[in-house]
Amino acid sequence: MSSDYDQWLSFAKQLAQDAGELIVEARKTATFDRNYKLHHELVTSTDIAVDTFICEKIAATFPHHKILSEESFPELDVDSLVDGVPIWVIDPIDGTVNFAHGHHHVAVSIGLFIGSTRILGVVYAPFLAECYSALRGKGAYCNDQKLFVSAASALRNALVATGFPYQKASLPDLIERLSRVLHACQDVRRNGSAALDLCWVAAGRLDAYYETVKPWDMAAGALIAEEAGARLGYFLAPQVAWPEAVNGEGLLVSTPALYDDLKALL
Amino acid sequence: MSSDYDQWLSFAKQLAQDAGELIVEARKTATFDRNYKLHHELVTSTDIAVDTFICEKIAATFPHHKILSEESFPELDVDSLVDGVPIWVIDPIDGTVNFAHGHHHVAVSIGLFIGSTRILGVVYAPFLAECYSALRGKGAYCNDQKLFVSAASALRNALVATGFPYQKASLPDLIERLSRVLHACQDVRRNGSAALDLCWVAAGRLDAYYETVKPWDMAAGALIAEEAGARLGYFLAPQVAWPEAVNGEGLLVSTPALYDDLKALL
Repeated sequence: MSSDYDQWLSFAKQLAQDAGELIVEARKTATFDRNYKLHHELVTSTDIAVDTFICEKIAATFPHHKILSEESFPELDVDSLVDGVPIWVIDPIDGTVNFAHGHHHVAVSIGLFIGSTRILGVVYAPFLAECYSALRGKGAYCNDQKLFVSAASALRNALVATGFPYQKASLPDLIERLSRVLHACQDVRRNGSAALDLCWVAAGRLDAYYETVKPWDMAAGALIAEEAGARLGYFLAPQVAWPEAVNGEGLLVSTPALYDDLKALL
Repeated sequence: MSSDYDQWLSFAKQLAQDAGELIVEARKTATFDRNYKLHHELVTSTDIAVDTFICEKIAATFPHHKILSEESFPELDVDSLVDGVPIWVIDPIDGTVNFAHGHHHVAVSIGLFIGSTRILGVVYAPFLAECYSALRGKGAYCNDQKLFVSAASALRNALVATGFPYQKASLPDLIERLSRVLHACQDVRRNGSAALDLCWVAAGRLDAYYETVKPWDMAAGALIAEEAGARLGYFLAPQVAWPEAVNGEGLLVSTPALYDDLKALL
């Protein structure tokens, strides 16, 4: 299987970078339309085009694999899953609002899991020319540089990232949690891309990240953070039916030394 | 005076870019120490070195001008100001926490005001290779591209940036304000550099920005935002003795169409 994994990782890295080129090109020519999904969530025609590009490539190359993708295949019939079938988890543009506003913090996220195990993750930030990747047990990288989480151990000096939901119903709990974090930690960042926040924990640029996100936001980044030495868990009890490998409900990822204090805080 | 202004702007742009090179070099070689000022505010040896570099250049070139600078000249004896003397306002590294953590969102900020008038502003982001600049009445630019604020007019679709203070005493009011903004607007960004947030409003990457900041955080960026068409004002009644041109207490900068709604919200 290991040579399969290597081959899949190479494929995913190339695919993420090709998709990134489409994103850069779309911004240059400003040829995208904006629409809003349920709960006022922005989606552009570039999200759809890049999703189609990625999913078609995967289907053509690995016809027996399954795909879970934000835009085209957002449902997964968990009961029908055949043991051992690899599942690709795709976010064509993580940080769509950033993309539409001309920000740099935008990523293509491609993960793969089998059963309950995250196998590989690639997060490519085309406007920063940073390709994050990890293979289970083989460490995490940004371009060719090996990644390690920071040595942060005290909340007071910790830089923590989080996100805010498009659904406003969950805001009161979120504000309460944010208030505790702002009081206890050095500062909070809200960069607008969950996949990159996870990679930035891996790279030591952030000391922790917490948020409730969807499978495609975290499938790749979670493995990258873990392979760089981060501890991954949950500050909420699981409420969803997603397999654990792609459960982003109440996700908390941090340096090992910060994890217990942060979980208690949240 | 106009040819003076042009010459000062050229000088400031070159100075900001030279300072930016020092910052990039310091990160590459990781040759900086970290310390904490009052209220747990991070300062690195690079802040100090870049501040010295900038202030010495200004003093050597314009010996009769005054300097207000975060690290070396943070006080301004307002009563002793001589009418018509230009005052340079310097932040050697706006976004010091970002700098120390390897983020891209870092800027050198150089502004100049005379009496109650902001004359010029330069904000250079060395890790993004973006040089923002403005001269009063002459428009705002990023590198050679003219800047215009976005057309945003509805809070529900507005992307709003803000910051969080190192002083935790003001947090309860801030959280209350943030909660109102999160409920009413599309999303909030916390990028970690006030100077760049102002420039990003100018560039249409953000629709609004609000925060209480120091003169050196906003002197340059405020003019850049205004010259791109932003409306600038305050959501708090002024409480400080800074001249209005560099008063960042309760600063609100947004597209003209959003301003009144945001001010009412805050």
